[in-house]
Amino acid sequence: MKENIISALEKVRTNSPLVHNITNYVVMNNTANALLSLGASPVMAHAIEEVEDMVTIASALVINMGTLSKNWVEAMITAGKKANEKGTPVIFDPVGVGATAYRTTVATQIITHSKPSVIRGNASEIMALSNANIKTKGVDSTQSADSALDSAKKLANETGAVVVISGETDFITNGKDVVCIKNGSPIMTKVTGMGCTATAVIGAFAGVEGNMLEATSAAMAVMGICGEIAARESKGPGSMQVNFLNQLYNISADDINSRLKLSYE
Amino acid sequence: MKENIISALEKVRTNSPLVHNITNYVVMNNTANALLSLGASPVMAHAIEEVEDMVTIASALVINMGTLSKNWVEAMITAGKKANEKGTPVIFDPVGVGATAYRTTVATQIITHSKPSVIRGNASEIMALSNANIKTKGVDSTQSADSALDSAKKLANETGAVVVISGETDFITNGKDVVCIKNGSPIMTKVTGMGCTATAVIGAFAGVEGNMLEATSAAMAVMGICGEIAARESKGPGSMQVNFLNQLYNISADDINSRLKLSYE
Amino acid sequence: MKENIISALEKVRTNSPLVHNITNYVVMNNTANALLSLGASPVMAHAIEEVEDMVTIASALVINMGTLSKNWVEAMITAGKKANEKGTPVIFDPVGVGATAYRTTVATQIITHSKPSVIRGNASEIMALSNANIKTKGVDSTQSADSALDSAKKLANETGAVVVISGETDFITNGKDVVCIKNGSPIMTKVTGMGCTATAVIGAFAGVEGNMLEATSAAMAVMGICGEIAARESKGPGSMQVNFLNQLYNISADDINSRLKLSYE
Repeated sequence: MKENIISALEKVRTNSPLVHNITNYVVMNNTANALLSLGASPVMAHAIEEVEDMVTIASALVINMGTLSKNWVEAMITAGKKANEKGTPVIFDPVGVGATAYRTTVATQIITHSKPSVIRGNASEIMALSNANIKTKGVDSTQSADSALDSAKKLANETGAVVVISGETDFITNGKDVVCIKNGSPIMTKVTGMGCTATAVIGAFAGVEGNMLEATSAAMAVMGICGEIAARESKGPGSMQVNFLNQLYNISADDINSRLKLSYE
Repeated sequence: MKENIISALEKVRTNSPLVHNITNYVVMNNTANALLSLGASPVMAHAIEEVEDMVTIASALVINMGTLSKNWVEAMITAGKKANEKGTPVIFDPVGVGATAYRTTVATQIITHSKPSVIRGNASEIMALSNANIKTKGVDSTQSADSALDSAKKLANETGAVVVISGETDFITNGKDVVCIKNGSPIMTKVTGMGCTATAVIGAFAGVEGNMLEATSAAMAVMGICGEIAARESKGPGSMQVNFLNQLYNISADDINSRLKLSYE
Repeated sequence: MKENIISALEKVRTNSPLVHNITNYVVMNNTANALLSLGASPVMAHAIEEVEDMVTIASALVINMGTLSKNWVEAMITAGKKANEKGTPVIFDPVGVGATAYRTTVATQIITHSKPSVIRGNASEIMALSNANIKTKGVDSTQSADSALDSAKKLANETGAVVVISGETDFITNGKDVVCIKNGSPIMTKVTGMGCTATAVIGAFAGVEGNMLEATSAAMAVMGICGEIAARESKGPGSMQVNFLNQLYNISADDINSRLKLSYE
C-alpha cells in the first residue's frame, strides 16, 4: 500500500486535478488552501446556472452539506447527477447528519440522487446515516470510530460507496475490506473543518486514482501523517492550521515510508 | 470576580457547550476556531428548515448580522424565537448597525423578536442602536467606548439585555452595574472579526453560566487577556490571528490571576 | 513612480478608505484582513436592500464573482450602477470567467452595467474576457501573462478600464501605457485568494488616488513586494498567508525603494 500512496500523491502533484467543491461557508478557505498546498486545483461554484458546466471540466466533485440551504441542495444534486453521467467521482461529506431532521432528509436525497463514490463522516454521522435513531450533537462526534464500523460496512454495501469513519483510528471500507489508519493527532479535532478538509483531499486523490478504496486510503494517510508532523510544532490550534497546510505542501515519500501506520482489519 | 471567571472557563472546557451560530461569512471560520480552541462546540446552521431543531439542542444562540440578507434574517428571528421559548440565551452582534437603513431596521427587528440576553457592539454600533441619529462608517467604530456608556445603559434598561461596548476599555452593563475591563491590545482591531469572535465567546460562557453579567464579563476578560498575550509575540495581524487562537487554547488560571484588569464603574 | 507608490501607501494608511466588497465566500476573511493590515477599512455587504446605501459611504467598490449566484449578481450590478453615479471607482475581478457560460455572461453584464475603473484577472481570465473562444480551467490560469497583453490592451480600450494581468510579471495597462512589475513569489499561487486580495488592495489604493494607472500600479507593487518578503520566511502556503498579512502591515518606504522592479513596456 505504501507505494500506492506515494504514487497517488505524485499523481496529484503532477496532474493537478480540478476539484469542484460545493461545500460549506466555514471551511471554504481551508479546503481551497489544502487542495492548493497538496498540488490540486480547487474551484468552488454553487450556482444552479453553472454547476453542470463546472463539474464537466472537473476530475472530482466534493459535496459537503455543512451549511446547507434549499438552493445549495438543488445545486448539489444537479451537479451530482451530471458527475454520475460523466463517470466523475462524487465525494460526500454528510456534516451534522442526525442533528436535525432536515440534514437527515437532505443526506438521504444526496445519496440517492448523486450516487457518491466515497462518503466520509465522523462516527456519529456514519451511524446516523445508516440508522435514523442515532442523534448527533451538532457537528462533533459523540461516538468512537470503531463503534461505527458495522454501520459503515452496511452503508457501503447499501450504497456501493467506499465509507470512511474519521477518528483516532480512521476506518475505510468498501463493505468487505477494511483499511485502518492510526496516524494523526488529537489537536486535529480542535481545528474547524479538518474533517471537511479530509473530504476535499479525498476528492483530489479520487481525481487521479480510479480505485476508490486506494484513493481514499491514500488521502486519509496523507491527512494523518501531515497532521501528526504539524502537531509536533504547534502550540495550539492556530499554529496547527498553518503548519498543517505547510505539511501538505512539503510531505515527502520519506515521511510516508517512515510514519504510515496502516493495517487491515 | 477572578474566581468566577476561572470557574466559568473551567465549565466551558468541561461541558463543551454547543453554540449555534447564525453569523456572517467573513468570520465563520475564525469564530468556529475560537470556540473550538476555547473548548466549546460550534455549529453554524442558517436554513429556515432546521434552525429551530438546531437551537433546541444548543446551549446558546449567537446572531451576528455582519453579512445579512433576507433569508438569513428570517432564520435569525425564527431561531431567536425558539431560543426564547426554550430559555436558551441569545447573544446578538449588530454589526454595522447605523451604516445603512436596512441594518438599523433589521437590528430593531431582531431585538424585538429574538429578545437577546446579551448585545455586543463597538461604541458606534451601541450608540446607533439606542439613537438613530448616529451614523457609523461601515463596520469599524468612529466613537470611543466611554462616550457610548450612557447609550449602553439605556439600551440595557430598554431591552433587559446585558450590553457590551468593546474598545480599548470594554464596558459591560446590565443597565445598573458597570464592569470595566482594560485588557487587550490595539492590534486586535487589525484582525477581522475580533468583535464577532468576542460575541461567539460570550455565547460559550452564556451556555454554562446563568448570570449574564458574569458570563459576559468572563468572556470579555478571556478575550482581552488572550489578546494581550498573543500580541506580545505577533509581528503583525497575520500572526496575531494565529497566536490568539493558541492563547484561547492555552489560557490558564494563572494568566487570569496575574493579568486581569477588571474594575467597577 | 516609486515616490507615487510610497505616497499612495501613506494615503491609504492615513485616510483608511472604506472599501465596499461584494466578493466570494472563499476569500472574504483574507481580503478583509488584507485591507485591515494595509490600513484600509473593509466592509462586506451584498443585500440588495442595502448595497446602494453602503457604496454611497465607500471610497471604492470591489466586485468579485468567485462564487457568484443570481441574487449576488443583482447586488453587484445595483451597487456598481450607484458607484458609477457617485463617481466611486469600481474594481472588478472576473474570477473563473471562461470556465462556464454563466460566468462569461455575468462578467459581460457587470462590465456593461457597472463600468469598472479597473479589471484584474489572470492571463486566462483576461483572454477569455476579450475573446470568448478561450477556455479557462476552473480559476487557475493556463496561460502566461505576456501572452495576454494584447487582449488586455484591447479590453482596456473597449471598456475604458485599467486592466491588470497578474502573473510572474504583472502587466497594468490603460490600453496605451503598460507598466510591468516583476516582484512577487511563485508560492503566492499556492495561497487561495491572492488574486482576489490583489483586487481588494487595488480598491484601497483607488479609494485614495484618482489616477487609476498609478493607483493600480501602486497596489500591485505593494502586493508583489509583500509577497516576496513573506515568501523568504515561509515554510509553505500556511505560513505564507500569515506572513503576507504581517508584511502588508509592516511594509515601509525602504522596502519599496530597495525592492521595486517596475518598468514600462
